[in-house]
Amino acid sequence: MKLKEIQLQTKRRTEVIDITTEVSEILRANGIENGLAVIFVPHTTAGITINENADPSVKRDFLTKMNRMIPEIDGYTHLEGNSDAHIKTILTNPSQTVIVEDGRLMLGTWQGVYFCEYDGPRTRKVWVKILEE
Amino acid sequence: MKLKEIQLQTKRRTEVIDITTEVSEILRANGIENGLAVIFVPHTTAGITINENADPSVKRDFLTKMNRMIPEIDGYTHLEGNSDAHIKTILTNPSQTVIVEDGRLMLGTWQGVYFCEYDGPRTRKVWVKILEE
Amino acid sequence: MKLKEIQLQTKRRTEVIDITTEVSEILRANGIENGLAVIFVPHTTAGITINENADPSVKRDFLTKMNRMIPEIDGYTHLEGNSDAHIKTILTNPSQTVIVEDGRLMLGTWQGVYFCEYDGPRTRKVWVKILEE
Repeated sequence: MKLKEIQLQTKRRTEVIDITTEVSEILRANGIENGLAVIFVPHTTAGITINENADPSVKRDFLTKMNRMIPEIDGYTHLEGNSDAHIKTILTNPSQTVIVEDGRLMLGTWQGVYFCEYDGPRTRKVWVKILEE
Repeated sequence: MKLKEIQLQTKRRTEVIDITTEVSEILRANGIENGLAVIFVPHTTAGITINENADPSVKRDFLTKMNRMIPEIDGYTHLEGNSDAHIKTILTNPSQTVIVEDGRLMLGTWQGVYFCEYDGPRTRKVWVKILEE
Repeated sequence: MKLKEIQLQTKRRTEVIDITTEVSEILRANGIENGLAVIFVPHTTAGITINENADPSVKRDFLTKMNRMIPEIDGYTHLEGNSDAHIKTILTNPSQTVIVEDGRLMLGTWQGVYFCEYDGPRTRKVWVKILEE
């Protein structure tokens, strides 16, 4: 199976967007039963994580803390002015690997797959590759 | 091979537990020779890492520093009071992927696989899925 | 395909080295067309990340910030004096997984694969394992 692409339009400079449904739909549409799904961001100022899908305050607290630990202005030398976004991306990770079993993305009850925008608003893409068993 | 589950009972709020033996035992019991092992936590306040297996002071220094950078009380809005644990989990990562070759989990001499508890004590599980070559 | 090894000699205590060419060369030399490449560091004081390959100021800003957030001397108990390097490694991650398609390492335009040295100078190795489709 060729890699599939999810397209996103982010709306704020830093933002966390749930893409679990989009990833699950790729499994379903391609009849994938068992294997590993790699969810990968081909950008350098946005990452992928897996975390709490219930209370939106978790996303807010995460972004507030990241912005406090790694502020937008902090004596950086990179002239584009988005060094903080590169650093946040490295700490978050550019991809996540999820187990697929019996046609399902194996996540815990409270887990969702999240796209983390650190230098928006921008048009973004996410690549999903599934290696079947 | 279906995913296997490791069960853990953590004893402190933040704690790092070596699960290398448990993961290696899954390889052995299932006669896995070559492939990739994904070690995944289906919780949102615990992560997986790979680091120093010799001197326990490394684990202690890691937890002390994480608790100082991301304290339990820090002006969060999430009412459950464990936003720090969610943030620590995202920065640690919810999973690790390890190479399997000739029946062995390919780790460096000083590396072990660690479960990182950030909101214990709790009963926890870890999923291990192996994709064979 | 057996895992392949890349060897590196780092020159500074903290340093970020582009290994994209070395990883791509492994794909080419082994005629790999489709699958997943796992790039894994078997050390506990060096990690792998994927980020900006163009402006070197991004690497410099990343290391400066990591060294400010997690300084070399910070009240650690580990007697080897490199607890900061272990912590930086955990936050960076010891490995990255990249999609391989049509014989190419699927990276975004501005992405490169980077070895992150946090306790050099040292002789280091990186393992690359490719699981083909």
